Amino acid sequence: LARTIVLTSGHTSNTQPPRRRRSDGEATREFILQSAARLATVDGIDGLSIGRLAEACGMSKSGVFAHFGSKEELQLATVERAGEIFSVWVLDPAAAATSGLDRLRALPERYLVHVEQGVYPGGCFFASLATEVAARRSPLRDLAADALAGWLGALEQAARDAQAEGALSGDEDPQQLAFELDGFLLVANLQFVLSGEAAAMTRARRAIDRRIASVLMATNLPSAEDRA
Amino acid sequence: LARTIVLTSGHTSNTQPPRRRRSDGEATREFILQSAARLATVDGIDGLSIGRLAEACGMSKSGVFAHFGSKEELQLATVERAGEIFSVWVLDPAAAATSGLDRLRALPERYLVHVEQGVYPGGCFFASLATEVAARRSPLRDLAADALAGWLGALEQAARDAQAEGALSGDEDPQQLAFELDGFLLVANLQFVLSGEAAAMTRARRAIDRRIASVLMATNLPSAEDRA
Repeated sequence: LARTIVLTSGHTSNTQPPRRRRSDGEATREFILQSAARLATVDGIDGLSIGRLAEACGMSKSGVFAHFGSKEELQLATVERAGEIFSVWVLDPAAAATSGLDRLRALPERYLVHVEQGVYPGGCFFASLATEVAARRSPLRDLAADALAGWLGALEQAARDAQAEGALSGDEDPQQLAFELDGFLLVANLQFVLSGEAAAMTRARRAIDRRIASVLMATNLPSAEDRA
Repeated sequence: LARTIVLTSGHTSNTQPPRRRRSDGEATREFILQSAARLATVDGIDGLSIGRLAEACGMSKSGVFAHFGSKEELQLATVERAGEIFSVWVLDPAAAATSGLDRLRALPERYLVHVEQGVYPGGCFFASLATEVAARRSPLRDLAADALAGWLGALEQAARDAQAEGALSGDEDPQQLAFELDGFLLVANLQFVLSGEAAAMTRARRAIDRRIASVLMATNLPSAEDRA
């Protein structure tokens, strides 16, 4: 619950007056959705049921049901909440970077941090969601596709900004670079959750550093060794 | 069903006399498991139920139940069958390569082929399975971890063989290389299933070619342009 509150206040301070207090109902709804998002990375978004969620929250089924009238409504609200959590952990900190190149490094780094800090027991919420629903026709599939496109778009935009700043080679295809960086993150996420070992994170960081270094303009290379 | 038979005969010819005919019971069991593996990439291995599977196979529930006494038995047999299919589509063709370097290229290439040919509607069976069960404690999680370790081990062994043959730089860490190649495959698989677009496959092939080219010994570089 401690983490719930930290996450939530960090985010909503951007959109609400900071001193406004949440009503009990709002706080309960956020607590339920936080639990739902965590549960979904273990049991799947399809494995979410009002009954299972009530048990995880230590609430009665009717208590949870009062906030979400149907399983579909609960699922959609859970994805929305996970998007806010992703912003707080990954997008917002990276947006504070002062250059495109720094942002291009910060986005994957924050992603790895949110996986290794155990924001979710099953790793990246959106990697789980996208893999689960990719082959279905459903509103959840569309949300997952939008989330992936938004994420790749953020990486691409950072690469384009770095090119405009003269930090990154103009020959590099930003879509190709974003694709490869996302590959390193996906495999690190999966291996980390499966094994719990930090080696996956070390490998991802090495791969990302080298891949970005391979397209840096000469003026941005700190030293010859860094590129080796 | 045509594909089922092709897959099956291709594999079992290695372990059974080629002229031996399957009994009706064996053929039915294989057909059910093929359907189950396909269904699991859409609904999840947890979404597999005897009832849903019977519907997908056009059989009665009791007909399916006669082959698998429990959902867990069905799930484990499905994973085993998916392992055979993976061998037929990916491991066996790559094993025919005559050098470590060729095998290092053939393994990811055959993986991409099995995704784009639609062996499963939801892309790679084991990527789906591993993502679904990674955060649980269950026999399925252990099977998924073993499958991933075996796959990474095959890539690493190909890299080590290529190093022993003098084709690949001895400075390269085979585990790091396998990790990165697997990342390109995972993201290609996910994007291809989500979008149905071939661009993900093109990007994966470009990334794999360049990554391997970056650690080739000079004698294995066909031309300067290939490395650019």
